[in-house]
Amino acid sequence: MKKIGVLGTGIVGQTIGAKLLELGYIVMLGSRTSDNEKAGEWVTKYGTNALQGTFNDTVAFGEMLFNCTKGEASLDILKSCDKKHFSGKILVDVSNPLDFSKGMPPILIPELCNTYSLGEAIQELLPDTKVVKTLNIVTCSVMVNAHTSGGDATMLVAGNDLEAKSQVSELLHQFGWNDIMDLGDIRHARSTEMMLPVWLSIYLTTQNATLAFKIIR
Amino acid sequence: MKKIGVLGTGIVGQTIGAKLLELGYIVMLGSRTSDNEKAGEWVTKYGTNALQGTFNDTVAFGEMLFNCTKGEASLDILKSCDKKHFSGKILVDVSNPLDFSKGMPPILIPELCNTYSLGEAIQELLPDTKVVKTLNIVTCSVMVNAHTSGGDATMLVAGNDLEAKSQVSELLHQFGWNDIMDLGDIRHARSTEMMLPVWLSIYLTTQNATLAFKIIR
Repeated sequence: MKKIGVLGTGIVGQTIGAKLLELGYIVMLGSRTSDNEKAGEWVTKYGTNALQGTFNDTVAFGEMLFNCTKGEASLDILKSCDKKHFSGKILVDVSNPLDFSKGMPPILIPELCNTYSLGEAIQELLPDTKVVKTLNIVTCSVMVNAHTSGGDATMLVAGNDLEAKSQVSELLHQFGWNDIMDLGDIRHARSTEMMLPVWLSIYLTTQNATLAFKIIR
Repeated sequence: MKKIGVLGTGIVGQTIGAKLLELGYIVMLGSRTSDNEKAGEWVTKYGTNALQGTFNDTVAFGEMLFNCTKGEASLDILKSCDKKHFSGKILVDVSNPLDFSKGMPPILIPELCNTYSLGEAIQELLPDTKVVKTLNIVTCSVMVNAHTSGGDATMLVAGNDLEAKSQVSELLHQFGWNDIMDLGDIRHARSTEMMLPVWLSIYLTTQNATLAFKIIR
């Protein structure tokens, strides 16, 4: 597996894309249009293994996919792509269902909280895809370099497919994560998405985004 | 301050009560009736500084209060007590708004989740009381002995009154907590209560309840 499609051209997509290039993958960054300016700058910066395309191009291209779109838009974006391109692939979902409509700090989108989650909604939308929820509990610089947080933090993983979680965990190791905890099936995406409020509370207190959680057990 | 009222005679109330006795406090354990059997056994076990009473007796008795009742019952129990007894006192709220009605694992009570919390609801019910939300992110054996989790875990605190949080933090130190983080006002009770789902996911995975969270920052 050499080709990875990263959906989303924001700071999360760009950071994960750059890390994957560093690890030797060919990476396409996907956005609404094929000539997205931010993706274009990213491609120019990172050279020959860095590509850009529409969301649909990116899903078709990647042998593995990363959802780095804003949580509030993720489902619509995924629905806009041709379903057949997702079939059998691993989709790593790093997004969070944040609702900024009520001001700061954001709440979670109520219908994707407590009794459901964005991770589950994506899995339900794409039943032939192996959705793995992970990395959503840290900021993107920590996602791709666990040591940025300054300690041996824990990364949580949830998904229905063991082999997919195993492959994603290998990537997580390459991102610097040595303490990886598999919480079980995709329903446990609820738990990890519900850690965002405390992440936000801590960030608002410390003004330091490079925090991470160590599960002491 | 020598007299502490602990509301709730379950394992949480009994454990916190026993720790407070060990620290030299006089402790009343409160329940619906003045002759509650579990409280009676606890009083017999712990001797002269251990008392029992109704919830109302306990609120009247304590110079500081602990809410160790089940989250689904907390508001009704607090409403059933004479409001004047709460006035000016610190109420340490260690409860969580768990809803077991949909099966295991519990969800959070929807109306006390995401945009509100049990901690805030208690503060709104008792505006003259200094509610401090803390300890709710660990099991009770870890609450009173942070080292039980096997590491230098973090305890989160939220509440509107700085002096109250300072007094409670001194108690937390005596419970073994060395890394205490003040998240701000009582609205941040939302964040800490929303950590319960991930606590439950981890517990279901490890079958080990003595877990705790270290915030690496």
